[in-house]
Amino acid sequence: MIGVDWGTSSLRAYRIAPGGAVTDRLDRPGGILTVEGGRFAEALRDTIGPWIAAGETRVLLCGMIGSRQGWVEAPYLPCPAGPAEIAGATIPVPFPDAETRLVPGLTSSDEAGVPDVMRGEETKLVALADLLGDAPALACLPGTHSKWARLEGGRVTGFSTQMTGEAFAALSHHTILARTAEDGPDQPAAFARGLARARQPGGLLHHLFGTRALHLMDQLAVAETRSYLSGLLIGHEVASASKGVTRVQLVGAAGLAALYETALRDAGIEVTTHDPDLVASGLHHIGRSLGWL
Amino acid sequence: MIGVDWGTSSLRAYRIAPGGAVTDRLDRPGGILTVEGGRFAEALRDTIGPWIAAGETRVLLCGMIGSRQGWVEAPYLPCPAGPAEIAGATIPVPFPDAETRLVPGLTSSDEAGVPDVMRGEETKLVALADLLGDAPALACLPGTHSKWARLEGGRVTGFSTQMTGEAFAALSHHTILARTAEDGPDQPAAFARGLARARQPGGLLHHLFGTRALHLMDQLAVAETRSYLSGLLIGHEVASASKGVTRVQLVGAAGLAALYETALRDAGIEVTTHDPDLVASGLHHIGRSLGWL
Repeated sequence: MIGVDWGTSSLRAYRIAPGGAVTDRLDRPGGILTVEGGRFAEALRDTIGPWIAAGETRVLLCGMIGSRQGWVEAPYLPCPAGPAEIAGATIPVPFPDAETRLVPGLTSSDEAGVPDVMRGEETKLVALADLLGDAPALACLPGTHSKWARLEGGRVTGFSTQMTGEAFAALSHHTILARTAEDGPDQPAAFARGLARARQPGGLLHHLFGTRALHLMDQLAVAETRSYLSGLLIGHEVASASKGVTRVQLVGAAGLAALYETALRDAGIEVTTHDPDLVASGLHHIGRSLGWL
Repeated sequence: MIGVDWGTSSLRAYRIAPGGAVTDRLDRPGGILTVEGGRFAEALRDTIGPWIAAGETRVLLCGMIGSRQGWVEAPYLPCPAGPAEIAGATIPVPFPDAETRLVPGLTSSDEAGVPDVMRGEETKLVALADLLGDAPALACLPGTHSKWARLEGGRVTGFSTQMTGEAFAALSHHTILARTAEDGPDQPAAFARGLARARQPGGLLHHLFGTRALHLMDQLAVAETRSYLSGLLIGHEVASASKGVTRVQLVGAAGLAALYETALRDAGIEVTTHDPDLVASGLHHIGRSLGWL
């Protein structure tokens, strides 16, 4: 089968053997926002045409390609959901060259009944849940919108999102903090100070202004501000999302994963860090549930 | 005496009689950022020249005119501070037309030793503290950087800042929430939903993403998003800043004060709302401590 992770800004395609081995892969900048006039079929053909010519007959897509801005909208599937439920909720896609289906995102509600959503991460979580076995686990996928997912019995039983990465970008570029938040190398001591501050009273909105006050009182240098702010936001995220938790399964790109590992260990939480390259394995698991392999 | 509140974007001047009555006032858009090449003396002369020609000999300035970007930098004065301490820390300004002094900002440290700062609000608080008498009180001055100040015995004993207004602007304009946060009339029901959400677990960064998820799940309309987000942020501010408090003295412009009054009452806090036009009175109190009146 062919698996495709088609996001907002990039397209990653995998040729996957029946046993799950990736035999070929392509990484393109052609995210869904670069596709004009709904010409998704042409864009897909340009990428995976040679694999279809070589005999592949089935394509499974995941990511923002299934959103309102994508090719076909796949409604969010309620949790708990594992590969079987997800396979059963895949949506057919009008691609004449192969049998093509699209993985739905997931939705979950918290205790207050407020909904949450993910699209793309569910496929990685299917792979992670398979790796971890049946015991309950909490997974953290840090990023623009960090996902904290509860896994059990090979399924995603619920999750919550923290808007940490996007809030960091907006606050560090579009508030008074931008005047003193200089780009530059990570400053581990300033990051640690931000983490420690996040554990003190006052709330995030107070701690944000404190970043400015520390600078004005000559207690925080321009080169330290971004790392301090990053520690502040990640510290608040970890405190909110990991209440009562003793162990977290961490899945993120190297640099970001290292920051989260520091933040989690600092909060007394044990961390297991995983290879973030899980999408092809997740697509393979869902493909197997579809009876394709 | 003449009192001048000279901020980043505006200049307000008051001609004040010995008893405190304002006998004339001017409101100009000429904030310190509009003054080129440090020509502050010329800008001030253009505004209050006629009052000096009519016999005024003393000018007291407050606001951002005393910041690093202003005319003369007035260092932050540590709390506790009332009119006597503030008068003693005023800074002379090289304005040849009259004896001219500048009110310093204040600084305060929280339990963890992290500093906070204000500049301009101290003058309003001097007036409010005089109105309230000697008993301890908590004042809230909502805005871009909301100030929560403890008052006692006519002095500001400490304070903390919440970056609520500026965070609202950055998050509503420069994140994915901008796509669905339409300008428009206030939506009281959506504001109340945001306030209620702020009292639930998950943390602010989770609640922010929930604003997006509610929209995607058709549970929050485009016209409601700004008010919901406003309720969320003000709710988080009030929860953090008013822990253990039963009464707040509120000083803000009409529209914003009404939102904070709703948020505070919703949190079970009694509110006394004050006329926000306090600067001239504060300048008069400090002028009296200077022996000018």
